[in-house]
Parts: sequence; C-alpha cells; structure tokens
Amino acid sequence: MDSTTDTGVNAYSPTSRSRVKRLHERGHYDRDTVYKILDAAMMAHIAYVIEGQPYVTPTAFWRDGDVLYWHGSSASRMLRTQSAGIPVCVTVTHLDGLVLARSGFHHSINYRSVMAFGKARKVEDMAEKERELNRFIDRVYPGRNATMRGIEPQELKATTLLAMEIEEASAKVRVGPPKDDEPDYALDCWAGVVPIAQVIGAAVPDPLLKAGVAWPEHLKLFKDGNRFDSVMTEHAEQY
Amino acid sequence: MDSTTDTGVNAYSPTSRSRVKRLHERGHYDRDTVYKILDAAMMAHIAYVIEGQPYVTPTAFWRDGDVLYWHGSSASRMLRTQSAGIPVCVTVTHLDGLVLARSGFHHSINYRSVMAFGKARKVEDMAEKERELNRFIDRVYPGRNATMRGIEPQELKATTLLAMEIEEASAKVRVGPPKDDEPDYALDCWAGVVPIAQVIGAAVPDPLLKAGVAWPEHLKLFKDGNRFDSVMTEHAEQY
Repeated sequence: MDSTTDTGVNAYSPTSRSRVKRLHERGHYDRDTVYKILDAAMMAHIAYVIEGQPYVTPTAFWRDGDVLYWHGSSASRMLRTQSAGIPVCVTVTHLDGLVLARSGFHHSINYRSVMAFGKARKVEDMAEKERELNRFIDRVYPGRNATMRGIEPQELKATTLLAMEIEEASAKVRVGPPKDDEPDYALDCWAGVVPIAQVIGAAVPDPLLKAGVAWPEHLKLFKDGNRFDSVMTEHAEQY
Repeated sequence: MDSTTDTGVNAYSPTSRSRVKRLHERGHYDRDTVYKILDAAMMAHIAYVIEGQPYVTPTAFWRDGDVLYWHGSSASRMLRTQSAGIPVCVTVTHLDGLVLARSGFHHSINYRSVMAFGKARKVEDMAEKERELNRFIDRVYPGRNATMRGIEPQELKATTLLAMEIEEASAKVRVGPPKDDEPDYALDCWAGVVPIAQVIGAAVPDPLLKAGVAWPEHLKLFKDGNRFDSVMTEHAEQY
C-alpha cells in the first residue's frame, strides 16, 4: 500500500472534500489503491441530496477507467434525481475484521474503503449504454454475455445508466492488530483480530433451470468457500 | 417477512422520503423487519450534507430501541458536522447473493437493506454516553466489558457519541431465484443464485498477547466459518 505522501501523476489531488483528516496515516490518494478497493467490490453506497435531505442507496456499480457506472429502472426516483447532474458521493467498504483491544476505547475494525466524488450524468448515447451494460455482466461473470440473448431495445429504454467521472477520491485502510495503552498489555484480556470476509456459498440452481444445463466455465471461480472480493478482483483483471 | 401492507401500530409511517417506490412489493415498514436487518449488522453507511455536497461514511453503529448510535473521535469532521442536529440517512445493507438470470436485464442481487431517517444529535449527558459506549461493546461481545478496565474520563471526553431517533425507516428485501421472460427459460443458459455471506475467519491473537490468556467464553460464537450476521443477531438478542 502506497503511503499518504504519494502525490505522483497517478494520484488524485485531495481537497478538503476528500482529504483524510482523522488518522491521516490511513489515507491514500493514488489511483492504484483506489481502483483495487473499488474493483474488489460489487456494491457501493451512493449519497445524494433532494431538497436538503441526504439519501444513501446501496447499488451495484462497476468501473471503466476513471468513470463509475450504476444503473436501474428508468422509473427510479434515485436515478431520475441523479440524472440532473447533481453532486454525489460513492462509497465502497470492505469490512475485513474486528479488532479487539484491551480497552473499549481502542477497539476498532479493519477495513478498506473508498469515497469518490463527482457529478452523476445520465448516459444518453445508446452505444455507450449498451456497451457498459454488457461490460457490467462480463466484468462480474467473464464471458457470460456470449451465453445469453442480447439486450432488447425496450430493455435498453427501460434502463437508466448513470456515470460519474471521479473528480477526487480517497481510500482509507486499517490493517493489523490492536494498539493498546502501554499499561493495558498486562491485563488478562484476550486481544487480537477476528477476520471477516464476504464468502461465496454453494450455488442454488433455478428450480426452472432447463434440464441438462451444466454449471458453466465462466462461473468457475464462484465456488463454495471462495472470497467474493478475490473473485471480483480476478475478474476485473481478466476483463 | 411481513408484507408491505403492514401498517399496524408497530410500523413506521412512510412519507415520500422512505416509501419504496420501485418494486414496492419488496418494501417493508414494520419495526420487526427493520430491527432484524439492523441488528444483524455492525456497519452502516451514513449520509450527510456539508454545503450542498453529500458525503457517505461507513461507520460502526448500534441500536437501543428506536435510537441508532455511532461514535468516533471528537476531532472527526463527520461527527462535528452531524453534532449540529442535521438530517442524516443511515443505510444498512446485507448482500445475500447474486441472481443470475437468462438475460442481462433480469440479473439481480438478493439483499436486505434498511434506510432510516432522522436528525443526528450529539449526546452530551455523560451517563448516557458511558452507558451506550459500554452497550456497544457488550452488544457485539456479550460480557466483554467485565474483562476490561472501564472507560477513562479523558477517553469519554475524546469520544463523540451521536444518536439518531428513527423518524421513519423502510426495509427492502429481495430473496429467491431469478424471474425471466417466458421465452428465455428455453435457453441453454445457467440460471440460479450464488449465495454470499459475511463469514468469520480464524482469530489472529495479538502478537503482544499476554502469555496464558485463553480465547474467552464471550467470543465463542466468533468461530471460524460462522456467519457474522447470525452472530450479531444472536448477540443482539442476548444483550
């Protein structure tokens, strides 16, 4: 992990909006760190404002270069509001573990998170829209589009696709054991880390699955027991 | 799961702010459903606005009746801003599975989520503050406070505790297999659900753990392979 002092050409330039103030040694602004955290995830939490009221909605997203995409029904209030080009904040979080210290005060969590800022825009260009919706499928399930029918024109119309160019972003990461006050190390209190990860379970075929359709090659990494973030990362690299 | 028509005495009264508009059959407003989703989680994403700019920050939270609490350093910008009594949105999401359909359009995810709305307030009362910070530890690790030293006065001062009474909340849940267009069921395309869950890994003792300190009874559910949401739920019921 690059340090917070990375201000190379491939780093975002943090303003007060994205600069990590508290525990700033946990902050990172280089694209490599930001992209890795984003690409290990499927879900983002997207914040937006309607008449002064903040909302945050969980949404599947994907990345193409420095642009984040998400989509949904053209009837969605969230997407209709965001289509107007309003400022949004896209946050992605991986909970990696519980950090048990010898005092309540020093309990913590291990995590990787990104806050990305920009303005949402509605993608009107039909070619970009179709390309990105297909990218989303193949980015999660590489090669799956080739096994399905294509997008129908009325489906393309019924789907709103939003895009946000990342204006600035910061990553925040905590790893490792607890840090206790010196005298507390003498206490008879268990301390350490309980790891947590999103893990894939045994696939459940659709009860209406056509007879004879086998588990396909493009899903081979979605195996019972595999880490979801590792699969997402590997598929992002493949695509 | 109660249906969206539950408008009993124990239900929130949705306004346009919290009413589930899209796929409203997935919406729930009863406290039982909302509490269950909240109590199965440690992390929330909290949205707030500073000068028109939305932010969403991942934060550990806990519930006491109809009040949600979260905390952090008194130096935190997020907490200082929220202390002013501004409107916030607290969203909790469990990703339960990937739903693979026979067309890109019908791909989906299984999830449980809650959006809760209210105004954040800073807890100034020292007794409430200490009680709730201790509740947080024992709610996650029942009985752990008894194995640690108490909170020091300067730690209490260095910690900001925020509370939000839930003014309204809605839950949104998707379960089950994909729903495809009728003709697509004939395609030779694998369809079904790939389950995802947050799972606990093998505990990593602090390298500085005092010799002879054993894995304690109050952590017995934090066992390699257990579901984190189940442990959080069971501990919420115990506490």
